[in-house]
Amino acid sequence: MIILKLGGSIITKKDYATPTLDNKNLARIAHEISESSYGKLIIVHGAGSFGHPFASKYGIGDEIKDDQDLWNKMLGFSITQHGVKELNGLVCEYLRIHGVLSVSIQPSSFMLTKNKRLYSASLDLIRKYLDLGFVPVIYGDVVLDLDESIKIAVLSGDQIVKYLAENLRPERVIMASDVDGIYNKNPKINPDAELLKVVTSNEQIELIKNNQTVDVTGGMSGKLTELLELANLGVESEIINANKFNIIKNALNGEKVTGTLIKKNI
Amino acid sequence: MIILKLGGSIITKKDYATPTLDNKNLARIAHEISESSYGKLIIVHGAGSFGHPFASKYGIGDEIKDDQDLWNKMLGFSITQHGVKELNGLVCEYLRIHGVLSVSIQPSSFMLTKNKRLYSASLDLIRKYLDLGFVPVIYGDVVLDLDESIKIAVLSGDQIVKYLAENLRPERVIMASDVDGIYNKNPKINPDAELLKVVTSNEQIELIKNNQTVDVTGGMSGKLTELLELANLGVESEIINANKFNIIKNALNGEKVTGTLIKKNI
Repeated sequence: MIILKLGGSIITKKDYATPTLDNKNLARIAHEISESSYGKLIIVHGAGSFGHPFASKYGIGDEIKDDQDLWNKMLGFSITQHGVKELNGLVCEYLRIHGVLSVSIQPSSFMLTKNKRLYSASLDLIRKYLDLGFVPVIYGDVVLDLDESIKIAVLSGDQIVKYLAENLRPERVIMASDVDGIYNKNPKINPDAELLKVVTSNEQIELIKNNQTVDVTGGMSGKLTELLELANLGVESEIINANKFNIIKNALNGEKVTGTLIKKNI
Repeated sequence: MIILKLGGSIITKKDYATPTLDNKNLARIAHEISESSYGKLIIVHGAGSFGHPFASKYGIGDEIKDDQDLWNKMLGFSITQHGVKELNGLVCEYLRIHGVLSVSIQPSSFMLTKNKRLYSASLDLIRKYLDLGFVPVIYGDVVLDLDESIKIAVLSGDQIVKYLAENLRPERVIMASDVDGIYNKNPKINPDAELLKVVTSNEQIELIKNNQTVDVTGGMSGKLTELLELANLGVESEIINANKFNIIKNALNGEKVTGTLIKKNI
């Protein structure tokens, strides 16, 4: 089994203020997946511009101040849920058009969080879809949260990857992003920056961070935390650059590709 | 709590070969719901032209002949799931635009059937959405089936209504259709046909059916079977005509409206 995460920055125009698909990229990636010889495959995708602008505007996951604020956040929940569902529909459709038997899985229908962390979710149906030969396509979503002070939260695709990998123990976890992986320095301003082939600890990342030259802030930092936790549970993962032609296809075919491997510190 | 079923014939152009919304009807109904003083409300909707043409074309729920047939049915599953999800997105959006805090609930993410009957499904999340003040919107969908000879099945909105009502015990179950209710004769060919105010048994329906003058075939017959089973479990329901202006609004406001009540035979 392979878990393939498609970052929101890969399949959408991430920095746009309104939902905008990167349809060229999505079509190419769907084609690469269909051309590969994957066995059991789960696809997890991010929200990009179909989710973040709404979740941020309505402060989903922030503490609820009063009833009016709750109503407003619930409205934001409804809007965000709709946006990410739209993206999921597009991803499933592109995949199917290219010959991949996609099945949509909606997190907010069966998952919930506790203080923004995925609390519990039955994976029985996902297992059954896989056994039958479907490719389940699950995604970053808004969900109910058991913490009374926030009540609703954003559940990231990265958290879902970790949960699935922890419970389903795939042979490979592939994180398709828009960078080659983790560098020892920020490659945008340092021509001598080197791609790290392996990352094994938060300390290693902190060390690089302290040099203040590497871009492991925001998305990538959160992603690394999830992946290092996963590595400590015994599941390795790799960050690859999905903008590079055929790298997803080659990875799904079992080839070793350029990227950063996140593994346990032994 | 009220469970409101919106028939596929009400919100879509049901007999069209391709997915076609009845946007005028849906907008009016969304407006009526928003103007009513509902408390806890669950909306269940049918698939109409967003689901039936695909489910029928691919023979979803029919016995699987061979691997090629399975692949074909799985493709049909993927296409049908996408179609009904699209409709659900539209229903949720129309409701929200009119001020109803809709939340989409996707059956194929957490429900499955056994020999085409809903087998088991946790309703914890639906309860939580209701408690918070959301209006969950769930719908007829394709799902996995535990019967190895069919593997996938259509789960009708009517079956979902029965399951929800049986487990959540709402005060009222309102089945919004495109007819006033059940008649003693087919009203289209019998000017003296009378609307039955109450139906209490299958025998009563069989008796009318044997006269061969009443249209309780197809959709309505299946619906009645579900509702009579529900009545025997102690939950009454009523069939009303959602094409009539303000009848949904009045029903949600707790008024007695024209229709047929399905109740237990005492």
